[in-house]
Amino acid sequence: MAVKVVVLGAGGLVGARLCDRLAQLETLHVSPTETQPIGKIVLFDVREPSAVAEATRADARVHVVLGDLTDKAAMQKVLDPEDFSHVTAIHLAALLSGYAEENFDLGLKINLFGSINVMECVRELKDKLGKPQVYVYVSTDYVACFNEYNRTHPVTEESFRLSPVSYGVQKACVELLLCDYTRKGFIDGRVGRLSAVIGRPGWSNSISYPYTGIFTQTLEGKDYDVPLPMDVPYPCSSLNTDVLCLIDLAGKVDGEEMGHNRVVQLPAKSFTLQMIWDAAQEVAKEEGIAIGAIKQVQSDSGSTTVKEINVCPEVDCSKAASLGLPTDVDLKDIVRDYVHTYIKK
Amino acid sequence: MAVKVVVLGAGGLVGARLCDRLAQLETLHVSPTETQPIGKIVLFDVREPSAVAEATRADARVHVVLGDLTDKAAMQKVLDPEDFSHVTAIHLAALLSGYAEENFDLGLKINLFGSINVMECVRELKDKLGKPQVYVYVSTDYVACFNEYNRTHPVTEESFRLSPVSYGVQKACVELLLCDYTRKGFIDGRVGRLSAVIGRPGWSNSISYPYTGIFTQTLEGKDYDVPLPMDVPYPCSSLNTDVLCLIDLAGKVDGEEMGHNRVVQLPAKSFTLQMIWDAAQEVAKEEGIAIGAIKQVQSDSGSTTVKEINVCPEVDCSKAASLGLPTDVDLKDIVRDYVHTYIKK
Repeated sequence: MAVKVVVLGAGGLVGARLCDRLAQLETLHVSPTETQPIGKIVLFDVREPSAVAEATRADARVHVVLGDLTDKAAMQKVLDPEDFSHVTAIHLAALLSGYAEENFDLGLKINLFGSINVMECVRELKDKLGKPQVYVYVSTDYVACFNEYNRTHPVTEESFRLSPVSYGVQKACVELLLCDYTRKGFIDGRVGRLSAVIGRPGWSNSISYPYTGIFTQTLEGKDYDVPLPMDVPYPCSSLNTDVLCLIDLAGKVDGEEMGHNRVVQLPAKSFTLQMIWDAAQEVAKEEGIAIGAIKQVQSDSGSTTVKEINVCPEVDCSKAASLGLPTDVDLKDIVRDYVHTYIKK
Repeated sequence: MAVKVVVLGAGGLVGARLCDRLAQLETLHVSPTETQPIGKIVLFDVREPSAVAEATRADARVHVVLGDLTDKAAMQKVLDPEDFSHVTAIHLAALLSGYAEENFDLGLKINLFGSINVMECVRELKDKLGKPQVYVYVSTDYVACFNEYNRTHPVTEESFRLSPVSYGVQKACVELLLCDYTRKGFIDGRVGRLSAVIGRPGWSNSISYPYTGIFTQTLEGKDYDVPLPMDVPYPCSSLNTDVLCLIDLAGKVDGEEMGHNRVVQLPAKSFTLQMIWDAAQEVAKEEGIAIGAIKQVQSDSGSTTVKEINVCPEVDCSKAASLGLPTDVDLKDIVRDYVHTYIKK
């Protein structure tokens, strides 16, 4: 009796941190009351997951598999139970917001059809292992629409879902289908709906990029041109808390207790660019870093595909708390984590 | 300059009535301010659309095409612009609620992948005809969840969408994708979200069947066993009004005015089985029909796959009214229509 954990999108920002955390664990919950030894950890990605720590890769349980999420045979192979009693899949792979907006067809293929492909393969495990297996899918609060109601009410798991971007629409479809696949008893699905994970190293074509660039670039000593207003609150999450929540969602949380709606809005707090800039300056002083300068510029001078911060300003994360998930989201901790991981490593 | 109208699912209850109505028209709106002669009406279905009137089939503009909605080449052919300036597609084809619940995979194939296939083919028309073509998709208020909020608030186009049945989830995904395809400028999509169309002849594996059987069976002189409580309000629509609304949605309604959310909840009123039974008895008297008796039985004695009326009790149709769509939903008219169409024809 042991569990095989498959991380899809192991090379991404959240994926790599998750893999590092999993490698530190001996056991994983396969139900609220039962844990099993982790027998194998599969790191699946389209390219070499170089962001995963050396120590993780050196773990005898860890195996890297490269392939295409939309390829059925590849997915069946990577999810094969072999001689394990449980297979737990955690799905982080996605084409992010800006890229999915630029290349609609590729976004639809990876984010919708690819995810359905994975769900179908997890569904096949039910016959092999005798019961529905856990599938944790990572979604995003982009599924919610920036309509008048959501501007003035925090987004919840029950908020209207007509995203302003294709990425969010594709994620919303998978959320709905996952709940239905679970209701039908095919899989034991859970959705971790993330708010923006700030602190991705380098540039990315994400709507949220300025909320990252304003501290990552300046703390690396560069000046940064801010293409968005300083006072727009934007829900952000903490990488470390996200990872802890996803691991708890993968078995410690009682699926029955979640009911039909398997979506959980993971802990988030709304920060403005000003708040992030203030935190960056404080951390710079504490850590003895010479911080770069910022300059306000027009939004159309930025290089991000989506120019407008049109997500909802607040997220209600009370369901996560009620399910017993960790809830810590501290801005200075987020900034310090970047400094210690990428600058002072 | 003329328009080719393609009706997908022409043989169904709504499809056949729609085809009959289209054949009575010389022209169709291709925008709020422009009409074009109807040059061709394609009746597409998986089997011979025998419910379509003889007079309609005799119309020189009418062509019946049999095929599979999920077949890309078939869809490209049926939607081919030929020498027409506009192609307007009206999509009614679906695997209904009970059947989609019994055969999940077939429901997913027809209701989700089939609809995406059609949208992709309509999208290809943009290059051929120079602008996005109209695609009217028929959805259902099953997209809304029977949660506490929706039990006490009328369902709108912005209500939370986690349907209690697979059929509704599949429809919700298409609604979201259609809005996104439209936002991207690929198609000019509009969703007509129907409430139950009562009065389908014969038995059907639909959740709503008792709301039909209680008057269709008794007015045909048979006794009817009622497997649901008599006092549960259930949103119903009028076949004739639905058809008029779909035709207006197909061009007379201004897409720009609809904005990002292209869904319209078509006119519905909530009726209980008692109200329908009362109306049936009144119409029987007026029409000189000897009506059968009803008897209350347990719900599990019924033959419908879904046993519980778990849709939302009320639907808010104010958006339809604000767009200028017809709003008439009269219960006795609905019953009379059945009598004149199927009993006294």
